[in-house]
Amino acid sequence: MNQPTGATVSFAPTSKHLPSIQWISEPIGHLRLLDQTRLPTEEVWLDCYDVASVWKAIRNLQVRGAPAIGIAAAYGVCLAPLPPEPNDIQSFKRQCLEACDYLATSRPTAVNLFWALDRLHSTIQSVGNDESAADLSRRLLTEAKSIHEEDRAMCHEIGRRGAEWFADGMGILTHCNAGGLATAEYGTALAAIFTAHDQGKRLHVFADETRPLLQGSRLTAWELQRHGVPCTVICDSMAAQVMREGRIQAVIVGADRITSRGDTANKIGTYSVAVLAAYHKIPFYVAAPSSTFDLGIQCGDEIPIEQRSAEEITHGFGKATAPAKVAVYNPAFDVTPAELIHAIVTEKGIIQPVNESTVRACLKGG
Amino acid sequence: MNQPTGATVSFAPTSKHLPSIQWISEPIGHLRLLDQTRLPTEEVWLDCYDVASVWKAIRNLQVRGAPAIGIAAAYGVCLAPLPPEPNDIQSFKRQCLEACDYLATSRPTAVNLFWALDRLHSTIQSVGNDESAADLSRRLLTEAKSIHEEDRAMCHEIGRRGAEWFADGMGILTHCNAGGLATAEYGTALAAIFTAHDQGKRLHVFADETRPLLQGSRLTAWELQRHGVPCTVICDSMAAQVMREGRIQAVIVGADRITSRGDTANKIGTYSVAVLAAYHKIPFYVAAPSSTFDLGIQCGDEIPIEQRSAEEITHGFGKATAPAKVAVYNPAFDVTPAELIHAIVTEKGIIQPVNESTVRACLKGG
Repeated sequence: MNQPTGATVSFAPTSKHLPSIQWISEPIGHLRLLDQTRLPTEEVWLDCYDVASVWKAIRNLQVRGAPAIGIAAAYGVCLAPLPPEPNDIQSFKRQCLEACDYLATSRPTAVNLFWALDRLHSTIQSVGNDESAADLSRRLLTEAKSIHEEDRAMCHEIGRRGAEWFADGMGILTHCNAGGLATAEYGTALAAIFTAHDQGKRLHVFADETRPLLQGSRLTAWELQRHGVPCTVICDSMAAQVMREGRIQAVIVGADRITSRGDTANKIGTYSVAVLAAYHKIPFYVAAPSSTFDLGIQCGDEIPIEQRSAEEITHGFGKATAPAKVAVYNPAFDVTPAELIHAIVTEKGIIQPVNESTVRACLKGG
Repeated sequence: MNQPTGATVSFAPTSKHLPSIQWISEPIGHLRLLDQTRLPTEEVWLDCYDVASVWKAIRNLQVRGAPAIGIAAAYGVCLAPLPPEPNDIQSFKRQCLEACDYLATSRPTAVNLFWALDRLHSTIQSVGNDESAADLSRRLLTEAKSIHEEDRAMCHEIGRRGAEWFADGMGILTHCNAGGLATAEYGTALAAIFTAHDQGKRLHVFADETRPLLQGSRLTAWELQRHGVPCTVICDSMAAQVMREGRIQAVIVGADRITSRGDTANKIGTYSVAVLAAYHKIPFYVAAPSSTFDLGIQCGDEIPIEQRSAEEITHGFGKATAPAKVAVYNPAFDVTPAELIHAIVTEKGIIQPVNESTVRACLKGG
């Protein structure tokens, strides 16, 4: 299955931009992921040879970040098993559609997952019954690679546009990880920081550690360090204090789903940071590709919020840090209303102010 | 040294109110502390026979909470070594004064520590040179026991007054631990909750886990559970979300130092909660005994803020959760300005609104 269509993506663990999602063509086509749950202490690569292992990698956050899970899911469909009779295209289409449906159940909030699977779904539907399973397989892989490559380009474009917000000497706060690990490479929120840094602007980033799973201290600090951007890790509860001390001139975060009016779902704690930024009169920015928008819903209340297990909070570090049987609330995301967002940068342009008409106008353009 | 002056305080680890600070009289007078760093998974008692071990227990947060460290330090002075010549009162006074000075270096922010040591200091000075070392030793222990007993009474009075803020059915958010563990027993912020609960009001408490050292999930949830008060543990970054969901009708916290105008130092993250409460129009209350006030300073900026080690954040759970050599900012406290505080309850009455004249009026009364 999945005949070689190009060279294996090379990976150099010491380069600035780690290709954390790779399609490996030979000898057997499969998806290789940098296991994000093992960072920053270990760089472990996870090879996925079937749909179920991609589903599991998404569910367990071994690959995470809205754009990244879209890309991983797209490659996941390419791992749908060929039928016993290689030219039974009907049977193979059914397998591929089932793979789409299955992968869509991995996580509920980030819309990029569904957006990517919709593209693969259209590819499946576009293949005629006179074509071969190998034809469909090739087309699926081409489509997945397009999604991957487009995301890479989007990230750099977002970085270029977002960097204009940052002036030399600024302190910038970010929450969770919206970097290269969360995307094809380079990131969304971090892309703007990387670009400004590469332009010679001296920035200092405060990374919220981002409980419960510490994507900020584990992943964002790690990426910033590799890129040479000065960074200080703080607990989430310290963001207000560093703002009060005058050390933050801008906040920038990524997004998992943005409604037509600009309400933005992102990692739990983002709404808190937005309220604190507003109180301290600090602009709060969102960076996301157009694939993160869900124009089918207007209000943030309509975004399904994933609830995760209590153990992430009570046993997040391998030992009990709360009494047995205690009740826990663990939403993985919250929604920041458009009113608290100074601007949103996408690869198509900047949305400012943030409202239904500016959102729709930006997404139509470009 | 420290001849028996009364019965050993009994302890019953399964009772609602755990006497987490005890003076053990026999066979050798010493201080027994419930090691708070081992909770909630282990109930380990720490016996301190000398001043240095009390200093270390305070520094390492084995005993923590502003009133509790004041009590522990007072008993710590009682462990000053007797001179080789038992009746060399001058030498013993010097030893005791040195113990006061030394214990005062254990932690810088909570003023109750200095308040308690000042009382012991006065006791030392009040003893004439014609008295014996045994006389001074007895007086020191009497004074330490008075501080301990007065704190117990203050907590119950604070609980009685603060409980009036809470109505049946309320959701209450608290940060860190201001319970029995942080005081002689019963607590300050938690005393108000315990009292209201005992009055039959159905309350639901949301306990911020309180990074980096998780006093909320480890200690507050444990105390609430023992007392039968319904409780849900959340990450600090989720407080804004539960407020937005309408689940919080009041916030109550303890304090480590309160200035003459009412600016309040408390566990890092408290200021964040106060800003979020103001944004969501939820009253923010502080509960503290009068010994927490430092009328010598007016503005919160004058309060010395303890900076703690990076490892509390990067290795807080026994394994690295941040890249090596990353910069970390770890202030143990922040200051909530009086403007964000709806009211302060003390054993002498309620301060509302919070300003210099109401603070001074309340503390003069009672």
